[in-house]
Amino acid sequence: MFKTCLENVKKSVPLVHNITNYVTVNDVANAILACGASPIMSDCADDVCDIISICGGLNINIGTLNFLTIPSMFLAGSKAKELNKPVLLDPVGAGASKLRTDTALKILDEVKPDVIRGNISEIKTLACGSGNTQGVDASEADAVNEENLQKSVKLVKSLSNATGSIIAVTGKIDLVSNAEKCYVIRNGRARMSKITGTGCQLSGIMTAYIIANRQNMIEAAAAAVALMGLSGEIAYSNLLPSDGNSTYRNRIIDAIYNMDGEALEKGAKYEIM
Amino acid sequence: MFKTCLENVKKSVPLVHNITNYVTVNDVANAILACGASPIMSDCADDVCDIISICGGLNINIGTLNFLTIPSMFLAGSKAKELNKPVLLDPVGAGASKLRTDTALKILDEVKPDVIRGNISEIKTLACGSGNTQGVDASEADAVNEENLQKSVKLVKSLSNATGSIIAVTGKIDLVSNAEKCYVIRNGRARMSKITGTGCQLSGIMTAYIIANRQNMIEAAAAAVALMGLSGEIAYSNLLPSDGNSTYRNRIIDAIYNMDGEALEKGAKYEIM
Amino acid sequence: MFKTCLENVKKSVPLVHNITNYVTVNDVANAILACGASPIMSDCADDVCDIISICGGLNINIGTLNFLTIPSMFLAGSKAKELNKPVLLDPVGAGASKLRTDTALKILDEVKPDVIRGNISEIKTLACGSGNTQGVDASEADAVNEENLQKSVKLVKSLSNATGSIIAVTGKIDLVSNAEKCYVIRNGRARMSKITGTGCQLSGIMTAYIIANRQNMIEAAAAAVALMGLSGEIAYSNLLPSDGNSTYRNRIIDAIYNMDGEALEKGAKYEIM
Repeated sequence: MFKTCLENVKKSVPLVHNITNYVTVNDVANAILACGASPIMSDCADDVCDIISICGGLNINIGTLNFLTIPSMFLAGSKAKELNKPVLLDPVGAGASKLRTDTALKILDEVKPDVIRGNISEIKTLACGSGNTQGVDASEADAVNEENLQKSVKLVKSLSNATGSIIAVTGKIDLVSNAEKCYVIRNGRARMSKITGTGCQLSGIMTAYIIANRQNMIEAAAAAVALMGLSGEIAYSNLLPSDGNSTYRNRIIDAIYNMDGEALEKGAKYEIM
Repeated sequence: MFKTCLENVKKSVPLVHNITNYVTVNDVANAILACGASPIMSDCADDVCDIISICGGLNINIGTLNFLTIPSMFLAGSKAKELNKPVLLDPVGAGASKLRTDTALKILDEVKPDVIRGNISEIKTLACGSGNTQGVDASEADAVNEENLQKSVKLVKSLSNATGSIIAVTGKIDLVSNAEKCYVIRNGRARMSKITGTGCQLSGIMTAYIIANRQNMIEAAAAAVALMGLSGEIAYSNLLPSDGNSTYRNRIIDAIYNMDGEALEKGAKYEIM
Repeated sequence: MFKTCLENVKKSVPLVHNITNYVTVNDVANAILACGASPIMSDCADDVCDIISICGGLNINIGTLNFLTIPSMFLAGSKAKELNKPVLLDPVGAGASKLRTDTALKILDEVKPDVIRGNISEIKTLACGSGNTQGVDASEADAVNEENLQKSVKLVKSLSNATGSIIAVTGKIDLVSNAEKCYVIRNGRARMSKITGTGCQLSGIMTAYIIANRQNMIEAAAAAVALMGLSGEIAYSNLLPSDGNSTYRNRIIDAIYNMDGEALEKGAKYEIM
């Protein structure tokens, strides 16, 4: 029940440690607050082990990785696993550069994140060694659609099987999968891709959801995806003709803020394959 | 008179040098502009001494401190004091990690900031060596309330006496104190805590206020606190049911932008203890 | 035709590589998306050469330069030129510190950017070795106005002649010039200076425009300036009395998002000198 997942976040107010990019970090923080959790950003090697120790889990986003933050990702990731706290990896731009691909693969290997959330090109890069990435966006050629859905579900199940991680792929159709079952989610609006950082926001929220729902992480991850998509729909329905992507950004975070369990349960559109 | 403090900022348009975190930096810049001052962000060790030399004062915020920015805080802080320019310290997350606590204490010791602005857990950490910090938020156990008000006022006066700094503690009840007198301010709305960075914004604004009111820094700091809280009240009264924390964030900065001396004087709710 | 310039961006959706400051980076990303292009931020020395290779061009903004990002600016800049991709330099704060001035001059010398976009104090610093900069804002003493217009046009033509770069100066009157001709643009609103980052946003958008209009970069740069100014006018006309600089920021990006070629062509106010 997505309702329960949401309510567990609001009740427990999980602290989320984020090592994330400086592009969308403010929206990530406000999105985490909007969903009922609490964010902390810390990426200094001398700081991250103390911070993860007081948090419920870790969100690693490689969007603007650099020589200072890469070692911190491994330090914090290892400490999180040692303390049995869930870790999410958002492999932003994997496939777009060697550094991004290598860092993401090394985090998979050494940290073994509980959840990997990315667009389909990033996930294909991790699964197959190559995706048709367009910078930090998925390419049209890779997009999950009704025609390749079966094949895409098979791909994510297989990546989950190989890594032991839950795989969350977002795009027009969203997939959240472990080795056995896959949530196929059809919430959201195309215009969300015209805002920077909806994926990063979702990764922050999803980390809060898996922290607050440790016994049922796949459903928690799926609930977070539905929350984001449904908030995008609600925000879209409130837009005026003069509104553009900046107002849409604000309205989506507002909709996350105002979502309750009933509305999420009722608005989520998904099947399990 | 808070009115005079505000008008001195608008008249003199102080340049504020900020070494601050990358989470809330954009809101800090817009909040400084909104209050009538002008922000500059510079945190490279080779840049900060030139920048502080052309600014009116310095805002040090340790929210995402790292190996590059920590030395810059000391360089800029020392240069500011050498040039007789006021320095404010926002010890974000002091108590949450050794690095944050140690850095804040070392800045207290070596830079001797004119003002320290934090939440009660951060301030208790600096005063007593320990606070019940929850990451970057104050813990409920530490909160200033009507029951512990006398004791809390005594604590901040004593920290002010020990450090020589004005102490500004924000929360449900705000305290701005030197060793002799303490402004107890009751503006603001609880929902402000659901936005990332209202504290950081206040630190930026407060730096502008103390620069523009050098002869009366305690009243200037109190005026900045009242400005932020009153703006939170005005913005709250304009919210629609579909608005959430993102729109509230924008509305608060808008309210700061539109505040004049009369409105601040009239809306400020405080007593002196 | 500015209309054609805008439509070429919307048709080709250029990928823009940004090495930019952490203050305004989110607005830069959303502004680039709003104008129909796609942003990537990457500033790690091990990442930038791969990223520029998949992008259409490079936007270098020195607003919060540091020891990690300065080398990346040169690496990415050289690689871009080697691959025949356009480079724009935004010399934020040139004149305000030795590091900023020296870095900007060195980029001019070594990278030879196709376009330099700054305020008049920054441009004077590059042209004459000194401007009356006020931190990151132009000083009143330097401002381009009707009285000094002829002289200002001569200055930018001469700087363009000396550097081989197109020079774009924004302020109350905007100038976009090569050695032979200068667009004098009179769009915009004074209140845009009360928002952090309208200049940075313009630099991001302008990079998208010159990528999509390689055969006519000066007109593309002028079209981007008119787009920003006209969006500032449209957003201004929608403001309510309770709106301030934060809402104005959102409304400007919204207006960029909703601009089409017809509206830009009709609303642009310029002459060629």
